[in-house]
Amino acid sequence: MTTKLASFTIDGRAAYGAITDDGVVDLSTRFGARWPTLKQVIEAGALGELVSAAAEMKPDYPVSAITYEIPIPQPEKIICVGVNFPDRNAEYKDGQEAPPNPSLFVRFPRSFTGHDQPLIRPPESEQLDYEGEIVIVIGKGGRRIAEADALSHIAALSLCNEGTIRDWVRHAKFNVTQGKNFDRSGSIGPWLVPFTDERQIADIRLETRVNGEVRQSDRTSRMIFSFRKIIAYVSTFTTLVPGDIIVTGTPTGAGARFDPPIWLKPGDVIEVEADGIGILRNTVKDEVRR
Amino acid sequence: MTTKLASFTIDGRAAYGAITDDGVVDLSTRFGARWPTLKQVIEAGALGELVSAAAEMKPDYPVSAITYEIPIPQPEKIICVGVNFPDRNAEYKDGQEAPPNPSLFVRFPRSFTGHDQPLIRPPESEQLDYEGEIVIVIGKGGRRIAEADALSHIAALSLCNEGTIRDWVRHAKFNVTQGKNFDRSGSIGPWLVPFTDERQIADIRLETRVNGEVRQSDRTSRMIFSFRKIIAYVSTFTTLVPGDIIVTGTPTGAGARFDPPIWLKPGDVIEVEADGIGILRNTVKDEVRR
Repeated sequence: MTTKLASFTIDGRAAYGAITDDGVVDLSTRFGARWPTLKQVIEAGALGELVSAAAEMKPDYPVSAITYEIPIPQPEKIICVGVNFPDRNAEYKDGQEAPPNPSLFVRFPRSFTGHDQPLIRPPESEQLDYEGEIVIVIGKGGRRIAEADALSHIAALSLCNEGTIRDWVRHAKFNVTQGKNFDRSGSIGPWLVPFTDERQIADIRLETRVNGEVRQSDRTSRMIFSFRKIIAYVSTFTTLVPGDIIVTGTPTGAGARFDPPIWLKPGDVIEVEADGIGILRNTVKDEVRR
Repeated sequence: MTTKLASFTIDGRAAYGAITDDGVVDLSTRFGARWPTLKQVIEAGALGELVSAAAEMKPDYPVSAITYEIPIPQPEKIICVGVNFPDRNAEYKDGQEAPPNPSLFVRFPRSFTGHDQPLIRPPESEQLDYEGEIVIVIGKGGRRIAEADALSHIAALSLCNEGTIRDWVRHAKFNVTQGKNFDRSGSIGPWLVPFTDERQIADIRLETRVNGEVRQSDRTSRMIFSFRKIIAYVSTFTTLVPGDIIVTGTPTGAGARFDPPIWLKPGDVIEVEADGIGILRNTVKDEVRR
């Protein structure tokens, strides 16, 4: 069954569709008048309808013809959770217990690129680092969502390589904004997998590989802050709306934690994989200054 | 001369126009087909054209008829600078010298309300605090903008009450996101003043009053990071685009710095004023939970 919906460009046109074993079913040519983007599909609660429709259709293009974009190109918010696996808190070696609430920061959409596109290493730093994470996409909006109801607000799942310019994270007195927001330093994708069942996220393996070598590997059942807690907490202060992206934290094993640190370099291939969601794959390229 | 352009709603319709001594000239009824929002006016580099056009027109409504919105309701980014006045760095009493780079965090548009609208104190905290700041709105986009060219990228000026839920700023291990993003806890406005001359910002007084009492007062010439430096630094990592909002930091004297701290309470009137820009005025209201 077809369960993967992606945003992409083809021949310079922004589009969305279903990714199948046999190719890409372009759904924007068929449904774009009703729902111009996947965000609007989600607002309409129509992800399931699209999946069913796509199952009846023949692919329009080979996957090789499309350029993947991040699945929701213009979300209202992208909120990232820091330090959400037990060993990762220990990595900070500051003697602090696991914190009482999730640390949160914000990334702009332009800090991400799509699946199969290069992560960009800027000339300002050699410290490009990976962080493999699971993404939840909000379907039903809300404020002060109860933990008991939280999962019903998830429309879909995806993956993130929350690529970070490590020295710029500590460039200033407070906050990590600049090290987390270099243009196209991270990626989201490849696609959205509609969320229908808690078992899709309750205890899945999340793994990051660099050139085939496993660097991060953990299970969502070990997260310090559960998906339910994150949604409840974030919605305490801000109203969540359809299409909002929450990036839920990375396991131990980023390149910064090696001694000496191992930074990403041009040509490296980074894969973020989670059971039932897929593999997000990117290479690294040096920025071409114009 | 009319030099103030505001976004507002009237009769439930989103609009923009010029605020004059005699009332509001609705420019969206006249230019809305070309430029649906002030962001698109800025993208077109047409702020000056609108100001000239409005000078020839008679007001359509009294100011009392409109509800102010934040001047750019849907900016791509709102980036805020922390700790940007000398005494404010000293307030942290951590023995650190002034930091080498600006501390940056992000607010979502829905964390702000417009001029004359109430700031909302949420039931989660009594620690609603004010921070008066000057806002620059990007006109010409760019990446790695040189300090020498930076001011030519500013389209307009405005004011911000960067309202903060103080205890939520330190809720987690890192980052201030949650304490800075409660819905409608801050304000931006009242309007945009087109930027044409460095003297508009080089050495102006920025003052915050609570119920008429001066709480913050300083001059932009004393900022640790100049407007030029902020634009150059931010554009190092992210591409600035027209309509982007940069909130440039607050002087010493927020309520948290009093002993004991003085938090805002329902009925308080907060005014943020800067020479040549205007007065941003808001009251405080407790949130009504539905």
